[in-house]
Amino acid sequence: MLDNLGAQNLSPAELRSAIRKGDYNRPTPGLASGYAQANLVILPKDLAFDFLLFCQRNPKPCPVLDVTEVGDPEPKFAAPGADLRTDLPRYRVYEYGQMVAEVTNITDYWRDDLVAFLLGCSFTFEEALLNAGVPVRHIEEGKNVPMFITGISCRQAGPFHGPLVVSMRPIPAHLVIRAVQVTSRYPAVHGAPVHIGQPELIGIKDLNRPDFGDAVTIYPGEVPVFWACGVTPQAVAMAAKPELMITHAPGHMFITDLRDQDLAVI
Amino acid sequence: MLDNLGAQNLSPAELRSAIRKGDYNRPTPGLASGYAQANLVILPKDLAFDFLLFCQRNPKPCPVLDVTEVGDPEPKFAAPGADLRTDLPRYRVYEYGQMVAEVTNITDYWRDDLVAFLLGCSFTFEEALLNAGVPVRHIEEGKNVPMFITGISCRQAGPFHGPLVVSMRPIPAHLVIRAVQVTSRYPAVHGAPVHIGQPELIGIKDLNRPDFGDAVTIYPGEVPVFWACGVTPQAVAMAAKPELMITHAPGHMFITDLRDQDLAVI
Repeated sequence: MLDNLGAQNLSPAELRSAIRKGDYNRPTPGLASGYAQANLVILPKDLAFDFLLFCQRNPKPCPVLDVTEVGDPEPKFAAPGADLRTDLPRYRVYEYGQMVAEVTNITDYWRDDLVAFLLGCSFTFEEALLNAGVPVRHIEEGKNVPMFITGISCRQAGPFHGPLVVSMRPIPAHLVIRAVQVTSRYPAVHGAPVHIGQPELIGIKDLNRPDFGDAVTIYPGEVPVFWACGVTPQAVAMAAKPELMITHAPGHMFITDLRDQDLAVI
Repeated sequence: MLDNLGAQNLSPAELRSAIRKGDYNRPTPGLASGYAQANLVILPKDLAFDFLLFCQRNPKPCPVLDVTEVGDPEPKFAAPGADLRTDLPRYRVYEYGQMVAEVTNITDYWRDDLVAFLLGCSFTFEEALLNAGVPVRHIEEGKNVPMFITGISCRQAGPFHGPLVVSMRPIPAHLVIRAVQVTSRYPAVHGAPVHIGQPELIGIKDLNRPDFGDAVTIYPGEVPVFWACGVTPQAVAMAAKPELMITHAPGHMFITDLRDQDLAVI
């Protein structure tokens, strides 16, 4: 069994292989530095068009990195040769909106009519923020990012509708503009912020009481900055109560072969 | 009947109304300055997922601006209140890959199972180039942009596959970098170029013999710059020979309420 330290020097393919063999089943943040990690949503084909359309209509919370062929668990673009049934450390299985299992592979759940969606994740732009000298508080404090349900509605597609969920990072005032510039380069992983500075304007009442994740310290002179969050499509899909939906377990992402830098538009 | 001059000062909604009433049936370049125009592709629902997936997999040639609800001709995001059956000046109707009609409305062809896709068009970034002082030769020469079939394959989705088609604009060498910067701001309308300088590297043999559109003058000191072209999805859809496909007629685009500036990521 690999620990985090042993895993840190492995390539994406080596990590996926270790995960597949059962040698690694922990969260993935910090692994395969420089490579994009992805959120996973698996749905039956009869919902795939509406879910893809939901993503197209809401690209900030739902940046699509790859979509598999119906019934094929290989993400041919994001990681050729990988197997989405076995290559994530932990999955959650939902039936009609209720979680029925948390498992380390989904071989027994896979069906010929399933379509897997890989959605960009904030780890990519957080690494870019850190490289630009912008602090990321929840990483400093060893916490999960604070996430809030906003009063902003996503654009509906078929059965998929619901509010935008955002993540919040407190940024020193003199670095806020840099944070906008840095994350604007990455529309494929949530991109530029959706709001800066006044949480009540987007329906958030108390920054100390996030709806998901952990509260973090906001120091004097810091401004709360909000980005669209990948929890949005999962929450929306769950609310539609599909007969079967499979996702990654929180923090246990799929590690792609796509370089963070390749996701930048400029 | 409005002429081009009479049409030039109308808003997008006024233009669509004039077109709907039969008062304008000419090409749309130069109209509704500052507003995005769009390519139209209409397909039956059973092909809609694969076509949307093709667009997701090939965002440079196929930048999706809006997708209608099944059977509903109103593009609720790009132009609320508009009717895609009547609000373009000219349409082409294809059955099994063969053009069977060119018409000024498609009311008689509309069906409850049709889905309309509006795809970004190069007019938006051409206006941005002109505003940045970068000349656009085919506009100067009153011609259609030269387009070439490349040796680059698009990523396949279901029955949709084929080569990338590009448009070419000769740019003075000292303005090429500016042209890259300006168009990079607009990933929703083809974005940055796909190639600069050596047509043979992307399978183009003779710049004087475009596959579609007109040849344009290339002056000494100018570099040919290639952008992904919206003809790609139409060519790919046509090659899949769907039982019914409807598109805009070349140059007769849909005029949206989206401002060009709103399509810029930075």
